[in-house]
Amino acid sequence: MQKTQINVGLLGFGTIGTGVVRVFQQNAEVIRQRTGVEMRLTRIADLDITTDRGVTLPDGVLVDDADAVVTDPDIDIVIELIGGYKPALQFILKAIENGKHIVTANKALMAVHGQEIIAAASRARVDVKFEAAVGGGIPVISAIKENLCANRFSTVLGILNGTCNFILTKMTDEGSDFAPVLAEAQELGYAEADPTFDIEGVDTAHKIALLASLCFGTRIDFEQIYTEGITKVTAVDIDFATQMGYKIKLLAIARQGDGAVEVRVHPTMIPESYQLAEVDGVFNAVRLSGDFVGPVLLYGSGAGMDATASAVMGDVMSIGRSICAGAVVQTPIMGYCQDQVVDQPLLPMSEIISRYYLRFTTLDQTGVLAKISTILGQHNISIQSMIQPESHAADSVPIVLMTHEAKEADITNALHEIGQLDIIQEPTCLIRIVNDLG
Amino acid sequence: MQKTQINVGLLGFGTIGTGVVRVFQQNAEVIRQRTGVEMRLTRIADLDITTDRGVTLPDGVLVDDADAVVTDPDIDIVIELIGGYKPALQFILKAIENGKHIVTANKALMAVHGQEIIAAASRARVDVKFEAAVGGGIPVISAIKENLCANRFSTVLGILNGTCNFILTKMTDEGSDFAPVLAEAQELGYAEADPTFDIEGVDTAHKIALLASLCFGTRIDFEQIYTEGITKVTAVDIDFATQMGYKIKLLAIARQGDGAVEVRVHPTMIPESYQLAEVDGVFNAVRLSGDFVGPVLLYGSGAGMDATASAVMGDVMSIGRSICAGAVVQTPIMGYCQDQVVDQPLLPMSEIISRYYLRFTTLDQTGVLAKISTILGQHNISIQSMIQPESHAADSVPIVLMTHEAKEADITNALHEIGQLDIIQEPTCLIRIVNDLG
Repeated sequence: MQKTQINVGLLGFGTIGTGVVRVFQQNAEVIRQRTGVEMRLTRIADLDITTDRGVTLPDGVLVDDADAVVTDPDIDIVIELIGGYKPALQFILKAIENGKHIVTANKALMAVHGQEIIAAASRARVDVKFEAAVGGGIPVISAIKENLCANRFSTVLGILNGTCNFILTKMTDEGSDFAPVLAEAQELGYAEADPTFDIEGVDTAHKIALLASLCFGTRIDFEQIYTEGITKVTAVDIDFATQMGYKIKLLAIARQGDGAVEVRVHPTMIPESYQLAEVDGVFNAVRLSGDFVGPVLLYGSGAGMDATASAVMGDVMSIGRSICAGAVVQTPIMGYCQDQVVDQPLLPMSEIISRYYLRFTTLDQTGVLAKISTILGQHNISIQSMIQPESHAADSVPIVLMTHEAKEADITNALHEIGQLDIIQEPTCLIRIVNDLG
Repeated sequence: MQKTQINVGLLGFGTIGTGVVRVFQQNAEVIRQRTGVEMRLTRIADLDITTDRGVTLPDGVLVDDADAVVTDPDIDIVIELIGGYKPALQFILKAIENGKHIVTANKALMAVHGQEIIAAASRARVDVKFEAAVGGGIPVISAIKENLCANRFSTVLGILNGTCNFILTKMTDEGSDFAPVLAEAQELGYAEADPTFDIEGVDTAHKIALLASLCFGTRIDFEQIYTEGITKVTAVDIDFATQMGYKIKLLAIARQGDGAVEVRVHPTMIPESYQLAEVDGVFNAVRLSGDFVGPVLLYGSGAGMDATASAVMGDVMSIGRSICAGAVVQTPIMGYCQDQVVDQPLLPMSEIISRYYLRFTTLDQTGVLAKISTILGQHNISIQSMIQPESHAADSVPIVLMTHEAKEADITNALHEIGQLDIIQEPTCLIRIVNDLG
């Protein structure tokens, strides 16, 4: 029997949930015109059923019991926008058991519990879509799973966290330090009251774990990803970066190596002429490199109520159309057929090759540069450029240099050795540089 | 019965066809891992079956008779890469009659004969996909039809022709004029022996016609699109643009107006700080604006054997997966259900509002600027900025100005009136400026 109506349930009536309600209401006509079916948001569950979200719902739609959504026999698709691990995981698993297709924006859950969810969905023959989990409104997951799926990907990298990018952009534009800009971002609603997941890079690591899995057909142990946030980025380093023609971005990088996958998240200097260097404010961008398509850059709003709701609804409409056509789950949930997914090791961080920005704070003495550069040379690290500005501090001077490509282990050893020198006044600042985007 | 093999036929064994063969051969493993099915290129038809394309085919695959592909009962999907209107249209219609799904890169055919193809496909219940028709490897058509489909789009614009962008980039970088750069592009294989379709903007117009149809759910009469190519762009104007902080690109612009759609293709000055201004060489970019997602920019290789083959294969794999799932044609071919597609009028060019760059070549006399600016003022055109460089010509001086927003009809009338003045030595050069990307 041809379905003429698809019923959708929503778990979590926060900011993004409200955005989803707004799309359903504001664009009902275009949704019908583009799917040929009525799509109705028939039930929303949230613990808070009293706060005014600025949208009007028919009586009986908003309930405080998630079970009323995940077990409702009339609901075809459940949207999960609660976030976090618990109870989102339990609700999703129960919805799957009840034959519901799932749409979620929950990158943390998919990155950490994705295998369990996929296994359950596979048994129940339902689909799980999560386009909104990475890059907000940017259609990056579909691009990998669908349009570019004939390619072998060599690299996927991107600016994946709007909060961090907003903070770094503002620090760059205003010459400010991290703490005051974070406070401002919190006031503006661009950073959460507890911003740890964002500023420590955890959110970005969740996202690159998903992108790497999708691109390389491998399971990624999220815990093993090298993750360094932006809390130690200073106005001083941004200023030196600018002088040297670079911008500092929190970049997530994943590369398919020879039998191992390289995945890392850290502040990164990017040449200012690169497109990625110009992704400012809360915008995100993802750059994919495939063996046939070459480089592809996808740019757009990485977060926010409306952009994320757009991605959620794209998934909902896709599943709705598939239900009407009588066949869902055509594309494997993680891009590769489950029996083809392999476990590749992560390349140890000590093995990566990068260029490095190093800022030493040393005593203002003769011979300092010689001592540093000698140790670097002994560790096979060669200097590509250097700035030693006039110092205004009493006894200390900064020495700033950029290296040629070097091995992380060599850098670590060299910095350890240099750190023993009595001329070194403060811990040395290290920021990795990316020139080759793959 | 679950299919375990999908057979694909190919019409046209030229450059892109060769790319498709290479993807099939080089990435057979990843195709199987991502679809769960064997996809085989079982037959290729081309009039030329002797030229060595650098790929090896099993005996019997290459034939000189297209009918042997479109009527082969074992073939599920037919890829059309012949290009042009005839005989591609006849082959596609015959393939559809024979129940084949279609994948094509043929923008001209889809822009002009799309309705006929869609009607036939609808009767035969087969799918027609054409991601490769716009933006080469960039997944723009899918983004509109699938991921961003909950949005109402206000604007879609882009740099859609690699040949033109290569030429304009080279003219800008080298200060060269059009003709020698075209010759060089032809030598390098970036422009065809007969480059008319590219350099006159026809190819770009085909592409924006498709994008506008997909975004706005309307049929577009391709013949009515205002189309101006790049043959009149000079090194002089590029130089003035640079001085004023702009780049000149062949931009395709489509906007949803109030009851009418604005679609146009012409050389356009774009502020150099905009992302689109930095799309250089043979790369393409498309910028979409949706009411929920906001702006999205998609960037990548706009042409070329490999990037186009990537897009073709993405479509082939998508249809292959749908066949295996027992259901194809879930998403309407042009994004909107056929019965929802409307005929919106195109906004007459005289009605558009734009900023304008105008370069007058005048006698070197007092009062010239006063005469020109008086007539502009009488037509409600106000000047935003001006350059009047020292002249090195005998009697003539250039006067270069940029206007505030004005109506095209007013500009046309004013330039006609100014053209009557005896101080005007040469036809005035007009280039539209885009600041508001929608």
